[in-house]
Amino acid sequence: MKKHRVIIVGGGFAGMNCAKSLAGDDRFEVILLDRQNHHLFQPLLYQVATASLSAVEIARSLRAVLAKAVNVSVLLGDVTQIDEETKTVITRHGEYSYDSLVLAAGARTSYFGKDDWAKHTFGLKSLEDARSIRHQVLSALEKAERTGDKEEERRLMTVAIVGGGPTGVELAGAFSDLVRRALKEDYRSIEVADFRIVLIQSGDRLLKSFSSEHSEYTLERLKKLGVEVILGTRVDDVQERRLHLKDGRWIEAETMIWAAGVAASELTEELKCPCDRGGRIEVLPDLSVPGHPHVFAAGDLVKLTDSDGKEVPGLAPAAMQMGKHVAKVLQEDLRLKTTRYADRYLELRPAYRYKDKGIMAIIGKNAAVAQAGKMKLQGFMAWLAWLFIHLAFLVGFRNKLAVLLSWAFSYLFDKPAARVFSIEQGQPEAPEEDQTIS
Amino acid sequence: MKKHRVIIVGGGFAGMNCAKSLAGDDRFEVILLDRQNHHLFQPLLYQVATASLSAVEIARSLRAVLAKAVNVSVLLGDVTQIDEETKTVITRHGEYSYDSLVLAAGARTSYFGKDDWAKHTFGLKSLEDARSIRHQVLSALEKAERTGDKEEERRLMTVAIVGGGPTGVELAGAFSDLVRRALKEDYRSIEVADFRIVLIQSGDRLLKSFSSEHSEYTLERLKKLGVEVILGTRVDDVQERRLHLKDGRWIEAETMIWAAGVAASELTEELKCPCDRGGRIEVLPDLSVPGHPHVFAAGDLVKLTDSDGKEVPGLAPAAMQMGKHVAKVLQEDLRLKTTRYADRYLELRPAYRYKDKGIMAIIGKNAAVAQAGKMKLQGFMAWLAWLFIHLAFLVGFRNKLAVLLSWAFSYLFDKPAARVFSIEQGQPEAPEEDQTIS
Repeated sequence: MKKHRVIIVGGGFAGMNCAKSLAGDDRFEVILLDRQNHHLFQPLLYQVATASLSAVEIARSLRAVLAKAVNVSVLLGDVTQIDEETKTVITRHGEYSYDSLVLAAGARTSYFGKDDWAKHTFGLKSLEDARSIRHQVLSALEKAERTGDKEEERRLMTVAIVGGGPTGVELAGAFSDLVRRALKEDYRSIEVADFRIVLIQSGDRLLKSFSSEHSEYTLERLKKLGVEVILGTRVDDVQERRLHLKDGRWIEAETMIWAAGVAASELTEELKCPCDRGGRIEVLPDLSVPGHPHVFAAGDLVKLTDSDGKEVPGLAPAAMQMGKHVAKVLQEDLRLKTTRYADRYLELRPAYRYKDKGIMAIIGKNAAVAQAGKMKLQGFMAWLAWLFIHLAFLVGFRNKLAVLLSWAFSYLFDKPAARVFSIEQGQPEAPEEDQTIS
Repeated sequence: MKKHRVIIVGGGFAGMNCAKSLAGDDRFEVILLDRQNHHLFQPLLYQVATASLSAVEIARSLRAVLAKAVNVSVLLGDVTQIDEETKTVITRHGEYSYDSLVLAAGARTSYFGKDDWAKHTFGLKSLEDARSIRHQVLSALEKAERTGDKEEERRLMTVAIVGGGPTGVELAGAFSDLVRRALKEDYRSIEVADFRIVLIQSGDRLLKSFSSEHSEYTLERLKKLGVEVILGTRVDDVQERRLHLKDGRWIEAETMIWAAGVAASELTEELKCPCDRGGRIEVLPDLSVPGHPHVFAAGDLVKLTDSDGKEVPGLAPAAMQMGKHVAKVLQEDLRLKTTRYADRYLELRPAYRYKDKGIMAIIGKNAAVAQAGKMKLQGFMAWLAWLFIHLAFLVGFRNKLAVLLSWAFSYLFDKPAARVFSIEQGQPEAPEEDQTIS
C-alpha cells in the first residue's frame, strides 16, 4: 500500500513533536524540512546571547533526535513556495510532493512595518542571532577597555532592550549577572559594574501576561540588579547606535535588542487563507487551514481561540501540544477512512484544546515568577521551579547534563563558560579612532 | 619607580605562560595583545572540526584566565607593525610603547608559496577554521542526502586531508569515528559508512617524528578505520573540489583540509632578523632576537637548537617552557641591574633548554601512540595517557569537566554533542541542481 506522505515544515517544538508522534507508524512516510540542521530550545536562547551557555548545549541535531524513526527523513531545505494545486512544496534544492502538509515554521522578529530598524538592532530567534549579540556585547567591552573617550565608553557600555515581555526581562537580568558578577574582575580601565542596561516597555508594566503583583516584583528585582526600566513610552525612531523615545529622550547604545514583537513566518503568505496582523493563520479547531483540509498549521504561526474559549499563546507547551494534535488528526483520518464513516472523516476530526501548563519567567539569580492556574510563585521557589522545568524539557540527556553543569558553575562561582567569540582573521572589527598609550 | 612595560603579542601557550609568570610581579606592567579574546587549546582543535567538542569547551577567555593578575592587562588588537626604533607596537586600534617585547604570535597554515590553494582548502589553526570544517562536512552530508546523482554523492562524501603528521592522522581518525559510529543511523538515502576519508602523505610513512613501529601501527589502525592512506606522493595541484597527485591521480573531494605545513606568523617579517624558510626567527639561546636584546620570541615562531643540541619542536610543552623562560630572563635582567653586574646583565642571561616531555598522537577510539625518552606506548594504554594528559593541560577546571563529560558520552554512546551548525538566514548554501522527489 502506498504510504501517506506528510511533509512537516520546521523542526521546532511543534514540528518535532508532530514528527515524533508519527515515528514508527508505518502508514506514514514523513519528511521533516528545516533550514537549520538542529532543533533549538528557544526558551534558553537568551542564555547563549548573554554568554552563560554555549550554542550546542541548547541545540540538538534533528537527525540525531529522529535517528531511530525509520519512517521519518530529515532534509535541510529552505521552503520558498507552496503549491496547493499540485500538492508540492518547493525549496531551493528541489520539490517535494505531499499528501498532507504541516506548517510549523514558527515566528520571526517583527518591527511592525519599520523594517529598516532591523539593521540597527538584533532580534533573538536563532543561534546565529544569539551568537551575534554575544559577539557584539563582548567586543563593545573590548573597545570600551581601549578607548580613552568617556562619552564613547558610555555608549559602548550600554545595551538597550526594547520589549518588556519574558524575553526582554530575561535578557536584562542575564546581562546584569554577566557584567556585575561574571566579568567583575576582568577589565582594567573600565568599571564594568557601571555597564548600563536599559529595558524599554511601551505598556505601564512589565510581563503583562502575568499578574500585576508579579509585574511589580519583577520591576523591583530588576531595579535591584541595576537595570534601568522605562515604562509607558514607546520607541519611535531607531538609528545607528541610538534610539528615540516618544517622550523625547534619545538613548545611545552600542547594542540594541528588539524583543518587542514577533510575526509568523513569511510562509503563511503562500496560502490564500485568513491571517491576523502578525501573519498568523486563523486555523480551524482541528488545526487545519481554512479551505485546505490537508494543510495544517501548528506552533507560533497559529492564531486560535480554542473550544474552551482560550486564546492559545505562543509558548513551547502549546506548540508541542499542537504538533501532537496534528499527528493525532492525521492518524484518525486514516483510521476513519477504513470504516463506514470514510466519507465523513473531515467532519469527525477532533478539535484541539489548549492544556494550560502555566507561565514563568526568570529574572536573575534566585528570582523568578511563575503562575499555573490559581497557583502563583515568586522568588527562590519560582526560580527553582524554572530551572527544573527547563532542564526537564530540554531535548537530550546529554544537553541536560551539560546545562546543569554550566548552571551549577555559574551559580557557585559566578563564572559563565561561554565568554568566547571568534574574530575572523583579516576581518577587523569596525574601525575606530586611533589611540595611544605610552 | 616606573614599571618595566612588557608587551606580549599572542595569548597562546607561550604568551599566556609568559604573562602568568609575570603576574603579581609588581616591577612589571604587562600588556597581552591578541586578535582573539580567548586562549585556544589547539591540541583539541581537530575535535571541534569533527563535531566531538564544542568551540567553547577548548577556549577560555584570556581576561578570565588573567583576571586576578592586576599588573596584566588584556587587549584585543591585531598587531600590524613593530617599530623597534621607537619601541612601539602598532595595532589597528592604537599604538603601545614597550620596554621589552615578547613575540608569541604562533604559526599559520602554509602552502609553501602556492597561496591560491588556500581558497580551495581549509587550514586548522583557529576556532573559525574548525567551525568552517564542521559546517562544510555536515552540509556536504545534507547535500548528499538530497542529491540523486551518484557521482555527485561520491564527491560530497569525500574528505581529503593533506599531511600525515599528528594533525592529519588525528583528523582522519576522528572523521572515521564521526561517520562510522556517531552518524551511522542518521541518514536515509545515503550509506554514511561509505564516506571516504583520504589521507595523503608525501613521505613514505605517517608521523615521521615518531618511531617507524609507531608509523606502522598508525597506518594499520587507520586502514582498519576505513581511512584510505596514500603514501609517497605529493599534491601538485589543487583546484575547486579536487586535487591532483604527482603520480597522476585526481582526487575529487568536497572537503579538502591542508595539514601539510605551517609557517610563523607574518609578524616575524617586521623585524630585520635571521629567519628560516618558514619565517621562524633564529633566536639567540636566551630567546632574544639577534640584534634586538629587548625583543624576545617564544613558541611556534621560534627556530632554535638548544644548548643540548636538540632542535626545539613546535609543540605546546615547548611553547609553555619558552614563555616561562622569557619571563625568567626579564626578571633576571631587572635583578642584575640592581647588582654590581648591572652593565653585564645581557651576557649573564640564562639560556633556554628544552625539556622533552615526549610526543603523542591519537588515532581513534582506544588507539594512540606515545613516546617519552626510551618509553614507547601504543594502543589502549597510549590512548588513556593521551586523554589524561590532554585533560590535565586543558585550561580551566570547568572546561576539563565539560570535555570529560563529552568524551565519556562519546565513548559510551557514540554520540558527539556538537553535531550542530548554523545557516545564516538569507544566506543559502552553494547553489546546486534542482531535484524532485515525488
